[in-house]
Amino acid sequence: MKEPSQRGAPIEFWFDFASGYAYFAALEIEEVAARHRRTVAWRPFTLGAAFKITGARGLSRTPLKRDYARRDWERLARQRGVPFHLPENHPRTGLPAIRAFYHIERTDPLAAAALAKRLITGYFQDGLDTDDPAAIASAAASLGIDGDAILAGVGDPEVKAIARQQGEQGIARGVFGSPWIFVDGEPFWGSDRLPMVERWLESPW
Amino acid sequence: MKEPSQRGAPIEFWFDFASGYAYFAALEIEEVAARHRRTVAWRPFTLGAAFKITGARGLSRTPLKRDYARRDWERLARQRGVPFHLPENHPRTGLPAIRAFYHIERTDPLAAAALAKRLITGYFQDGLDTDDPAAIASAAASLGIDGDAILAGVGDPEVKAIARQQGEQGIARGVFGSPWIFVDGEPFWGSDRLPMVERWLESPW
Repeated sequence: MKEPSQRGAPIEFWFDFASGYAYFAALEIEEVAARHRRTVAWRPFTLGAAFKITGARGLSRTPLKRDYARRDWERLARQRGVPFHLPENHPRTGLPAIRAFYHIERTDPLAAAALAKRLITGYFQDGLDTDDPAAIASAAASLGIDGDAILAGVGDPEVKAIARQQGEQGIARGVFGSPWIFVDGEPFWGSDRLPMVERWLESPW
Repeated sequence: MKEPSQRGAPIEFWFDFASGYAYFAALEIEEVAARHRRTVAWRPFTLGAAFKITGARGLSRTPLKRDYARRDWERLARQRGVPFHLPENHPRTGLPAIRAFYHIERTDPLAAAALAKRLITGYFQDGLDTDDPAAIASAAASLGIDGDAILAGVGDPEVKAIARQQGEQGIARGVFGSPWIFVDGEPFWGSDRLPMVERWLESPW
């Protein structure tokens, strides 16, 4: 049995940088984790890789779903009182942002987590281009992360391979949507599921 | 301004008889409506028609999603303390069930609503075959609905046309998933959204 004061394993938070639902969850996931003495392991990946298996397309590329999703995101933003603006050229792949994250994570996981949150909120609040290494480096620099290291990392074949492998590992574990949360291996899909995640953290059933 | 005692327009509840998430919502939707002095307009349709537009496949026919959905349905059933058993040969099309519903609704909407709830709960609790007119007629008879009328209705070309047109009208209004709820025209997709539906019923934002 664990001591009550002992921290549990990190919550895994899998997401695509262009996922509107991941944005709303990203605004809350760290508070959810902290309430249960957990930390968050941010796990960016590209939904496109999962879509190759499920045959799905992105919400913003699917008739009917696209219109509903935009209306729903704006409704969620009004309900929660948070900004929400789809950037021009949405959806971006976010591949440079994913690579920047895993590059930084190798040496400084806390800085990488801060960068992940900064990039997804920047995308949906300020039009930050998650496909532009210079924009990512600038956002990183605002967090005290070396922008030149970002620029070197996003072009590094080894970093690209790590980023791709991380996504493949997630998909191999069943991840096919964004956001996707694992709590001690238990999977939860969708920002709507945060209340269920909280209950699971209190007491799995 | 409406008088507080005045009933609002019915909540529209669109669903596929083989949708696990619709089953969980079907167990709650009438109580949700009643708390806000509303009734429920049950609107069965076949998701297959929507999938032709969105390009999606049913959860139970999609790799990764299928496994997640089954785990999630069982988890929801345990959480809520309700039965849940996927019938053999899931997913059924439910076309005879849809036709039976719209046939009965022409003359007795309240009986049709009771039949809809009986058929979807029967499917997920007792293996009721929603593609078998005799099974549907038997379930209807248990509610005091004439079983012979059901058998005649499900084979009636006029009823088939009405059922198909109803589904087409839903899809034309943006319905692409199950369950799908309209509150005064505002769309909500998914059983997870019942709390948001309740808030909207209290006060739209």
